[in-house]
Amino acid sequence: MRVGVLTGGGDCPGLNAVIRAVVRKGVKVHGFDFVGYREGWKGPLEGLTMELGIEQCRGILPRGGTILGSSRTNPFKLDNGVERIKDNLAKDGVDALVAIGGEDTLGVATRLADLGVNVVGVPKTIDNDLSGTDFTFGFDTAVNIATEAIDRLHTTAESHHRVLVVEVMGRHAGWIALHSGIAGGASMVLIPEQPFDIEDVCTKVKDRFRSKYAPIVVVSEGAVPMEGGEMTLVSGEKDAFGHVRLGGIGDRIAAEIEQRTGAEARAVVLGHIQRGGTPTAFDRWLATRFGLQAIDAVAEGDYGKMMALRGTRIDRVPLIEGTGELKLVSDEEYAEAQVFFG
Amino acid sequence: MRVGVLTGGGDCPGLNAVIRAVVRKGVKVHGFDFVGYREGWKGPLEGLTMELGIEQCRGILPRGGTILGSSRTNPFKLDNGVERIKDNLAKDGVDALVAIGGEDTLGVATRLADLGVNVVGVPKTIDNDLSGTDFTFGFDTAVNIATEAIDRLHTTAESHHRVLVVEVMGRHAGWIALHSGIAGGASMVLIPEQPFDIEDVCTKVKDRFRSKYAPIVVVSEGAVPMEGGEMTLVSGEKDAFGHVRLGGIGDRIAAEIEQRTGAEARAVVLGHIQRGGTPTAFDRWLATRFGLQAIDAVAEGDYGKMMALRGTRIDRVPLIEGTGELKLVSDEEYAEAQVFFG
Amino acid sequence: MRVGVLTGGGDCPGLNAVIRAVVRKGVKVHGFDFVGYREGWKGPLEGLTMELGIEQCRGILPRGGTILGSSRTNPFKLDNGVERIKDNLAKDGVDALVAIGGEDTLGVATRLADLGVNVVGVPKTIDNDLSGTDFTFGFDTAVNIATEAIDRLHTTAESHHRVLVVEVMGRHAGWIALHSGIAGGASMVLIPEQPFDIEDVCTKVKDRFRSKYAPIVVVSEGAVPMEGGEMTLVSGEKDAFGHVRLGGIGDRIAAEIEQRTGAEARAVVLGHIQRGGTPTAFDRWLATRFGLQAIDAVAEGDYGKMMALRGTRIDRVPLIEGTGELKLVSDEEYAEAQVFFG
Amino acid sequence: MRVGVLTGGGDCPGLNAVIRAVVRKGVKVHGFDFVGYREGWKGPLEGLTMELGIEQCRGILPRGGTILGSSRTNPFKLDNGVERIKDNLAKDGVDALVAIGGEDTLGVATRLADLGVNVVGVPKTIDNDLSGTDFTFGFDTAVNIATEAIDRLHTTAESHHRVLVVEVMGRHAGWIALHSGIAGGASMVLIPEQPFDIEDVCTKVKDRFRSKYAPIVVVSEGAVPMEGGEMTLVSGEKDAFGHVRLGGIGDRIAAEIEQRTGAEARAVVLGHIQRGGTPTAFDRWLATRFGLQAIDAVAEGDYGKMMALRGTRIDRVPLIEGTGELKLVSDEEYAEAQVFFG
Repeated sequence: MRVGVLTGGGDCPGLNAVIRAVVRKGVKVHGFDFVGYREGWKGPLEGLTMELGIEQCRGILPRGGTILGSSRTNPFKLDNGVERIKDNLAKDGVDALVAIGGEDTLGVATRLADLGVNVVGVPKTIDNDLSGTDFTFGFDTAVNIATEAIDRLHTTAESHHRVLVVEVMGRHAGWIALHSGIAGGASMVLIPEQPFDIEDVCTKVKDRFRSKYAPIVVVSEGAVPMEGGEMTLVSGEKDAFGHVRLGGIGDRIAAEIEQRTGAEARAVVLGHIQRGGTPTAFDRWLATRFGLQAIDAVAEGDYGKMMALRGTRIDRVPLIEGTGELKLVSDEEYAEAQVFFG
Repeated sequence: MRVGVLTGGGDCPGLNAVIRAVVRKGVKVHGFDFVGYREGWKGPLEGLTMELGIEQCRGILPRGGTILGSSRTNPFKLDNGVERIKDNLAKDGVDALVAIGGEDTLGVATRLADLGVNVVGVPKTIDNDLSGTDFTFGFDTAVNIATEAIDRLHTTAESHHRVLVVEVMGRHAGWIALHSGIAGGASMVLIPEQPFDIEDVCTKVKDRFRSKYAPIVVVSEGAVPMEGGEMTLVSGEKDAFGHVRLGGIGDRIAAEIEQRTGAEARAVVLGHIQRGGTPTAFDRWLATRFGLQAIDAVAEGDYGKMMALRGTRIDRVPLIEGTGELKLVSDEEYAEAQVFFG
Repeated sequence: MRVGVLTGGGDCPGLNAVIRAVVRKGVKVHGFDFVGYREGWKGPLEGLTMELGIEQCRGILPRGGTILGSSRTNPFKLDNGVERIKDNLAKDGVDALVAIGGEDTLGVATRLADLGVNVVGVPKTIDNDLSGTDFTFGFDTAVNIATEAIDRLHTTAESHHRVLVVEVMGRHAGWIALHSGIAGGASMVLIPEQPFDIEDVCTKVKDRFRSKYAPIVVVSEGAVPMEGGEMTLVSGEKDAFGHVRLGGIGDRIAAEIEQRTGAEARAVVLGHIQRGGTPTAFDRWLATRFGLQAIDAVAEGDYGKMMALRGTRIDRVPLIEGTGELKLVSDEEYAEAQVFFG
Repeated sequence: MRVGVLTGGGDCPGLNAVIRAVVRKGVKVHGFDFVGYREGWKGPLEGLTMELGIEQCRGILPRGGTILGSSRTNPFKLDNGVERIKDNLAKDGVDALVAIGGEDTLGVATRLADLGVNVVGVPKTIDNDLSGTDFTFGFDTAVNIATEAIDRLHTTAESHHRVLVVEVMGRHAGWIALHSGIAGGASMVLIPEQPFDIEDVCTKVKDRFRSKYAPIVVVSEGAVPMEGGEMTLVSGEKDAFGHVRLGGIGDRIAAEIEQRTGAEARAVVLGHIQRGGTPTAFDRWLATRFGLQAIDAVAEGDYGKMMALRGTRIDRVPLIEGTGELKLVSDEEYAEAQVFFG
């Protein structure tokens, strides 16, 4: 049996650990051959392959990135995309595919499975917003990086009486902000699921200064002001201090806080350092176990499934379960930690 | 309402995070007062108290150790131990206790609960061997420290053609060894649940050298040779205190490997660095949530319970469930990762 | 003898280590008393003091920030600033001052020394741009944080064929960029001392992609385009991709690279995480030794001096030597590592 | 011109950075060819070579170990060792050698240089005990690892009233112990250069407990008791290989402290984790600059020299200067930090 492997979407610590586990168990236990498809769905679409065996997987466990490369190519948006993939799989003698990726990559996998392609999926997102699994790998690494950054900023905030706004990843879901905010001892956590009132944020900033502690505000990149609580500084304008304070939500919140409270505020945008580099032990363990389970699913012909962490077990759930709906922070989960915030 | 808090047993990253969460929610939401009992059960036994409020908990979230101190005192092994505890609780006006600790500390809590003391427990062990909960805090930190050590040793093993034996914590359960062995890409993992054959270990060492890779053997401190596979080098004498100080299992395995294979072997015993210092983000998050749930249990009069992680939820389970039986690595869990080992 | 201590300017890992060393040796060896002046020169100006003894310095060695607080107050810019300082020192019975700070703080110290105030200075700047000393504390921490960030970004750059622009601190001097660029294996390092040609940067980006490696460009916040090599996207405008790409030099360079080369480019602005949190071992060692030497200078009445690292020795140099002229990256030092760049 | 490169002796973070810099500048600037000699002096002795060019050096900068492998082979202890080396160099067309190593490796280089071999040396020792240079690469990494370990142990010592003895590397010189002891806030530092009185150590342990702080004792592996202050507990027997494996100095001191003071004491022996894994930024920078200077020395025919850090400059000094005499901690350097100890 010959199995193709591909990785799609943004970078995520643990991708190589999945690939290594898939290949190692595939070769050693199931006696499979492998084809590496390069750059996500572009690989089977354009026939971009690379040799993939135990040798190629040596030493990659602790390394970020993906030896297969990645892209955001979506075959369903291209002419004859599906046909070209089927043709290339046939030409390469590939019987089954392991697709490792997030919402988009697995969305393609789901549709291909419906069209008869033998595919199993491994969920990947540092945002942790895929349904059907307790956690995805990469998330723990991102949360640790954000938490270390918050740890570092605490002393600056205290010693210099500054407000520090930390913008973390999370377009649709606030998991990284919530977990790193709890772990880092933030004063406030603003997430996409709970639109904020900028005036309320500023009140809490002033309260915190009154009790002599400098505030750290953790904000998801996708956080938005609520209706009636809009920010008034227009993106691109200079703020009251003459700084051009622009771009993302973190910078804008810092500018508003300065203008409304008079306290110095600075934004730190963590950006891509959250999604690169060596994975934490948890992410390597989870990614490895996803990989082992995925190749077992292939061996059993259990296609159309996605690997999922449930407690400490790795289960298989229908692909559609993981990609149907985003997993958001619930009201209860957001409320749980409010006693530390504000 | 007045609540006592104590921490017992060995050091564990996250203890302060639990204390902070208990106190903060207790004061802010439930309007409770707190008494800090110092040095585990010795505190209520001997009336060792300290002030405990929001102020005492500032800045402790990222810090290892416990502001309450700890001990291994067991009141059931002392004359009138239980009476003295009840008397001191009454004298201090304490209505309920939050006991944070491992098997021993929670074992005492379980028996005190049976005797009518209002107590809730928070499970603590870096070994992760308490039943009833998916994970305990401190474990993730220990696994990350062990994994980083293994990462560092890889290059030395490769460049210098040496066998490196890494001894990690785990007297009865091999969780730290198994998780760090998977995450660190070890060649072998020896755990208490699976007695090893030293000759088999040496065969695998030689095989690995034959394929040009230097082996890293991760071993739990409680690992033991199987019958018929005993080690033959005599271990160190007992010292003046009756401790067999010299030559833990790691050192002994390294010595046997050298003798039997002729390859240079060195042991690294990680010891106490696994249980001190700042907790990982996961452990801070878990410890914080355990603390929040524990004080809610007190507020609801739901005594005799232990906090437990189930998936991503914090549940309460009967104390007896956590302390009745150790949670060991199952045959399946050990088998799962064997494809990387040997 | 009674000694005042103050810390001025921006945050810098190692400030607490200096304070601890000054106080500990002052008390234990020289038998001095101490007064802590809060918030830089604002402290002696407004009589803001705090108790400062061995007890206040317990546990602060590994902590970022400064227990004395800081500010950018300059007494020479205020009415009667110098008189008020002299009056307060007299009122507090302070015989000598240890001033820990950067160019501005030590500039004030230099002028006060000329006016008869007994002051010794300890140089502090994460930018490493103070003359007279091989290194300043805080710099090594900043370089390590930047290097770890670059390490993390490498895998993303490779796996996703992106240009990553990392903006590090350094308004006037490129030391952090140069050291972290060498240590992180950057493809290019742009520093204030060497104005760059944006077209040349883009050529090198294309060359690097041609040899199949993704470029990482490290840029000091103070880097500037050379005459004739200006960037053309106006700050604040949308770029060719519709992104509002603004603000700092890092963002602007990324935008220009995207527009001119067609390659995806992202900027990561490390900001304040470079100047907070626990110091590296080197910075703790250097800060501690500066503190020990500073209090010895006080004990010897050797005022008007600044502590300086020369090789492995701590020397004392005239304050004016440290503050007279910025220490910039020389042409030779920039040229030395060019073989890795471009 | 064709240049051989070899690495000898124990593992040391930064070896790969030197190799990369030598090769990159050698190829790009000087137009040299390279031969990699494997496993130290064994390489040119037995003709063990590997291809070495820019391609082989990609991605190795942040990696511990050495792509060339290492050994402790000494050609002067073997029959016709020198002749065989000269023959192999001639056969391989090698005009000059860059030897990277410690006392032994450079000692061989020194003698070969006297015998007419064109060789330049790069000093390598995590112990930092080579003369002629302010620091050697690998040392900063080792000190940081030791310091992080001490940081972790502090909370355990405090919370559990334990004495913790940390054994660090340093057979002949106490540099790692001294620097990490200062940086980690140790209570005592015992080094080979200053024989200790065990009774004095125990008195200080008791004093420290009396002032309510738990002691951390940092000890070099080569520390020895002074005459009249011997330890009385017998250490472990020799094992079958004649190694006294059981009970290094750390374990023995902990045992003595327990017996003499009644306080619980534990030893942590850091061992090989100090010499593996990714180098710090400082070590990468230093190693890189050593490599650049070494290949320039070759290009200039300036043989018989060793690279040396002097302040912030890289100088060349006669090989004999580095290997003639060990660089030990002076009485003044040991005395400097005593105010923190005891």
